[in-house]
Formats: sequence, C-alpha cells, structure tokens
Amino acid sequence: MAQQERAIRTRKIILEAAAAIFDERGYESTTIAEILERAEVTKGALYFHFPSKGDLARGVLAAAVTTDGVRSHSLKLQELADTLLLLAYRLPREPMLSAALRMAVDPQSRRLFGTAWPGWTELLADLLREAKARGEIVEHTDEEAVARMIVSTWTGVRVVTEGLPGTYDLPGEIALLLRLLLAAVAVPAVLSRLEISAARAAYLYEDMPAWRAETAGSAAGITP
Amino acid sequence: MAQQERAIRTRKIILEAAAAIFDERGYESTTIAEILERAEVTKGALYFHFPSKGDLARGVLAAAVTTDGVRSHSLKLQELADTLLLLAYRLPREPMLSAALRMAVDPQSRRLFGTAWPGWTELLADLLREAKARGEIVEHTDEEAVARMIVSTWTGVRVVTEGLPGTYDLPGEIALLLRLLLAAVAVPAVLSRLEISAARAAYLYEDMPAWRAETAGSAAGITP
Repeated sequence: MAQQERAIRTRKIILEAAAAIFDERGYESTTIAEILERAEVTKGALYFHFPSKGDLARGVLAAAVTTDGVRSHSLKLQELADTLLLLAYRLPREPMLSAALRMAVDPQSRRLFGTAWPGWTELLADLLREAKARGEIVEHTDEEAVARMIVSTWTGVRVVTEGLPGTYDLPGEIALLLRLLLAAVAVPAVLSRLEISAARAAYLYEDMPAWRAETAGSAAGITP
Repeated sequence: MAQQERAIRTRKIILEAAAAIFDERGYESTTIAEILERAEVTKGALYFHFPSKGDLARGVLAAAVTTDGVRSHSLKLQELADTLLLLAYRLPREPMLSAALRMAVDPQSRRLFGTAWPGWTELLADLLREAKARGEIVEHTDEEAVARMIVSTWTGVRVVTEGLPGTYDLPGEIALLLRLLLAAVAVPAVLSRLEISAARAAYLYEDMPAWRAETAGSAAGITP
C-alpha cells in the first residue's frame, strides 16, 4: 500500500512537472530531459509511468476535466456556475489546467492528442439536463448546444483575457460571462437566487484543501 | 494613378499570400522565400511593401478588423449582429481573417505583434453605445464589458468549434451565441425584431461582391 501510494505520488510529480513546462513553452518545444530535471525523478520512473511524451500530454488532458471542490447544492445551476467559477480561479494557479488549454488551442498538439473539450461538454450537458428535470432552466433549452457554448465561451474568455492589454481577473470575467449566458437559460426565480461572482470563486477555492484531504483520505481508505 | 493601383494590388497579393501561409503553418514556421513563391512577386516588390516578416504580420492583423459588407440598419443591434455573422461566414473563406486569429491565439506571435482584439472591442463598444442611445439595450449594460465578452466568446466559439470532433458550422454556432448573449442585453421589443441566423450570414456574404465593387469604385474615384 505504501508502495502504491508512493507510485501515485511519483506519477503526479512527473505529470505536474510536464504540465508546467508544456504550459511555459508548448508541447513541441518540451524535452523529456527538461521534465526529468524539473521532476527530479529517474528516467526509469518516468518511463515506467509514461512510456512516451505523448502519454504525458494525454495524462495532462485527462486531469483537466475536474469538478474537485464543487459541493452539492439545492440548485443544479449553482453547481454548474461553481464548477466554472472554481475552474477560473484554479487555472491561473495550476499549470495542469492551463497546459491542457494551451495544448487544446495549439493546432499541432490538438491534432495529435485532441482536447478536454468533449469531456467538459458532456459534464456540463449532464448538469443542464438535471437542471431541466428540476425546472431550473427554460423548457426549450438545447442542453447539448448550451453546454458546447459554455465550453467555447469560457475558453474564449480565458484566451482573450490573456491577450488583451490591461489586467483582467479571470474569475471576474467568467462571472460576467455566466451572468450573461444564464440570463438566457435560467428561469427567473432561479436566476435571482444564483450567486455568481469572483468572490464566490475565491471562497470555493479556499475551501478546497479540506475537501481534497477528505477525498484523498477516503480514496486511500483512511476514513470510512 | 494606374501605377498606384498596381502597387495597391501587389501589396494585397503579398499580404494574402503571407496570410495563407501564416494560417497553414503559423507565423514562426513561415519563411519569406515561401511567401515570395506563393505570391509570385519579386523580392524587391516584397521588401518595398513589407521591409520585414513582422510588417507582414502587422499588416494581416490590421486587415482583420473589418465591417466590409455590413449595411446600415434601423437597429444598431442588427448591425452589430450582422458584423459578427458576416465575420463568421468570411473567416473560414478568407485566410487573412483566420491567420489573424491563429496569430492572436499563439502566445509567441501574440507577444510580438499583439492582436486585433482591442480594435474589435472598440468597434463593438461604439455600436453598443449607439444602441443604448437609441434605447435598444437595457440601461445598466456596461458597453465596454459586453463588447469584451462578445470578442472573447466569438473567439472561443471559433477556436473550440475547430477543435471539437464532428462538424459545426461557424455561422450557425455564432448565431446561437448571439441569441444567448443578446437575450441578456437587448430590450424585449428589439430582441424580437433581430434576425440572427446562419442564413442571414450567407445572405450578407452573397451581397458583398457588389458592395465591394461600389466601395473600390468610389475609392478610386470612378463613381462620385
């Protein structure tokens, strides 16, 4: 068990080192040697977990569809908003997330490895379907199309925010986006109850370490 | 005059050749030799118009903020929608536009040349200010912020549409985006009068050659 935990930790260290360099320089320009140096692991350990550089790219993309830190709420739309707000707070802080986006946006690595977008679209469409079943969104909403629009627009806000002169706060911009989009989708009584702000993103993030510890604990069988 | 016209045409041919290759392979990987071959012009002509490869990149970005083909309309919001629908129809057909977006999305060329996004944001904010002055949009709208959101989300829809499996039609996706966004901004009486569809994008585009000929004619002093 201790050995398995160590293996999981080593895998994570390698993946995070790879993500950090992919994020800084792009997938193409990154070498295995740099990843080894950053991760401070042996070549053997790296190749055991990731036989090729492509496996590292796929590992980063797989880790980028995440609802970690989102707690269940009586409104499914609030869970949806929380997922997207939290992601906005985490992305500039977690190279794993920003590397996945950089790779998705780059035509070359996209051709090779695809993107996390289909996974995100599916996850959000599921939330919208649940929201519709509870009467939170207007009847004629096409959940697939709206989910696709959320993924597209979230991505665009990140990409353009990064490229505009001046400093824009990603959670603040994503809050603005969500208020615009959900105005067209939520029923009025639900819309007025939603909490969509950069402050909420920060609050959810502050709450994450505890949440993470819990999950890690239960996954390792420490808590029942 | 004939000489000046020829110079304008040569400049355009060179810029279009450069845009086509930037669009296919990215700015970094493009060489002047390839542009010369594609444009079929002399080295002297190229360096006369564009002393460096960077000047070509700046030329492409400058050409990518365009309302060509948008006619005036009694509703300013319809002009705004038409601008964005027409762009969606033109972008996959005009390397100049898609090259500008590819360069804006690429961190390296963005660092060197910036993007067309500030120009677009300003153009759309102006349209929104005019729309507000006419009572077409809700009073509390922040025109700057909404303009920035439109630029961000339009960009995201293009980037993600390109990267998703399956084929999505850009004008159709942009129409969906605009219906969502404008629902939060337009006053109800205006919203119901807006025509936002992929079909309108095609219709506006079909009408462009005539419009272009007119403008070109008047610019050259042929028509009064």
